[in-house]
Amino acid sequence: MSLIEAVPNVSEGRRRDVVDALAAAVGGVPGATLLDTCSDPAHNRSVFTLVGDAAALKSALLELYAAALARIDLRAHSGVHPRIGAVDVTPFVPLEAAGMPACVALATELGEAVARRFDLPVYLYERAARTPDRRRLELIRRGGFENLGTKMRRPEWRPDFGPAAPHPTGGATAIGARRLLVAFNVNLDSGDLDVARRIARAVRTSDGGLDAVKAIGVRTESPEVVQVSMNLVDFERTPLHEAFEAVRREAARHGVEVLNSEVVGLVPAAALLPAAARALRIDGFNLRRVLDHRLPGRETSPAPPVAPET
Amino acid sequence: MSLIEAVPNVSEGRRRDVVDALAAAVGGVPGATLLDTCSDPAHNRSVFTLVGDAAALKSALLELYAAALARIDLRAHSGVHPRIGAVDVTPFVPLEAAGMPACVALATELGEAVARRFDLPVYLYERAARTPDRRRLELIRRGGFENLGTKMRRPEWRPDFGPAAPHPTGGATAIGARRLLVAFNVNLDSGDLDVARRIARAVRTSDGGLDAVKAIGVRTESPEVVQVSMNLVDFERTPLHEAFEAVRREAARHGVEVLNSEVVGLVPAAALLPAAARALRIDGFNLRRVLDHRLPGRETSPAPPVAPET
Repeated sequence: MSLIEAVPNVSEGRRRDVVDALAAAVGGVPGATLLDTCSDPAHNRSVFTLVGDAAALKSALLELYAAALARIDLRAHSGVHPRIGAVDVTPFVPLEAAGMPACVALATELGEAVARRFDLPVYLYERAARTPDRRRLELIRRGGFENLGTKMRRPEWRPDFGPAAPHPTGGATAIGARRLLVAFNVNLDSGDLDVARRIARAVRTSDGGLDAVKAIGVRTESPEVVQVSMNLVDFERTPLHEAFEAVRREAARHGVEVLNSEVVGLVPAAALLPAAARALRIDGFNLRRVLDHRLPGRETSPAPPVAPET
Repeated sequence: MSLIEAVPNVSEGRRRDVVDALAAAVGGVPGATLLDTCSDPAHNRSVFTLVGDAAALKSALLELYAAALARIDLRAHSGVHPRIGAVDVTPFVPLEAAGMPACVALATELGEAVARRFDLPVYLYERAARTPDRRRLELIRRGGFENLGTKMRRPEWRPDFGPAAPHPTGGATAIGARRLLVAFNVNLDSGDLDVARRIARAVRTSDGGLDAVKAIGVRTESPEVVQVSMNLVDFERTPLHEAFEAVRREAARHGVEVLNSEVVGLVPAAALLPAAARALRIDGFNLRRVLDHRLPGRETSPAPPVAPET
């Protein structure tokens, strides 16, 4: 049995009772362990981190979709993070080498079940995508819930499963399989959203910036500043400290300082350790010098990225 | 079965064939896995890192003592690191919570066996010490091999097991139980040994410096500079980045820069991660935000220090 991580993102980060109810729903299935719940009021979004086997995760996520669709009405939702659904996106991540095919299969199975049970349009993305144009989540999500009805009338945006129109309150959902990524937000000591957006453009891959980095500039509430919100989709190609340094450098060009940073959900040790080695100037450091990664039975997990994502 | 780490330190770091023979001896016992061999020519010392269960580790270490006593003659040994024995010191470290009593029992058992089989004086130290004055390894080792004969004539330095005089070529050995420590050496861009010694005095606990830090100043060969060689015996009380910063600051007072640093043997992730969080300015970071530390069955190991060492 292969250990899989699921990281569903739900469009509710303000109403504590709703987040608690969703956590109870997704965390109540034996064999699927809810490790973490991370809510952001400005994003108005919560990220749950679960691990377990495929069958248990599928059951737990069906509970989550049921609980979220019953409680979240996207017509009344506001937040700075792009989203198309009450359960906006559910990625599955293999925690053991060679687990990707199982994650693709699980994404497909869950997608079919969610569409059938809740009459919800489902887009399969990244490794689970059936066509190349569905790989990138940001394209699926472009336009947001507000423009989803119009977008879905176009044949190229017919969903992989479910009806060809948004669910009235729940929108649509993206379900996929991908490798470990780090959601890493850097807060700037500034209220100027334009600066955050310029920095995001300077560092993200799609505009010629760093390798394997997605970034947007957003306004956040706690603290009340602007933020460069990043996904590092391959932290071996661009480690956290390089992304942090790039944001710091770009911010300095605008006369703005970095306030602090945050990781959303849980972060793999392998993504943080190079930053430590660099700060401590450890000569010839690599992960094989870390005891935890060398203990019998733990050499390969959680699996660091090994090949470029396309 | 509780997983235990053993980190024997042997007084040979130059003759490659001898180090290889010792690694083969200690690494050839089923149930004890040799994870790492780290040799330093200036220290003329090698550190082996093994994990396994108590019975397998005892067998593996008896093989190591036999191989080392057959090949190392301390009368012909030179090196910058303090030492009293061919196998200078063997600590056992519990990798799972509540494993310390098993490590104390294992140290005692191995000590009895080593004394009986090789006619070698054995000092039990730290958690395995039978009297408070035997807790501190540096007191047992003070004076080195060269003064061991004289020292052992004093009743208070009668060994815990074995004869009351040094083994002619193998000296004596210290066997103990302790928590995880980090051997962390900071190289200075200087050849002035006096500066390294002053910095060591400024940062070590015994001279009023940082908490839970042992330090000496030594000359090293690769690179050819001086070094502050530290043991961080409780990296929760003084994390690596604080020790590094203190050395950097003291060095700057002497107009000297830090060149780089090195960890000896393997380092627990929990000792490095706070340095990463600090470098990346991650707000409210703690180990519970690290995926690896939250996976089922891994929550508590390797066990971080939880109580002050005395």
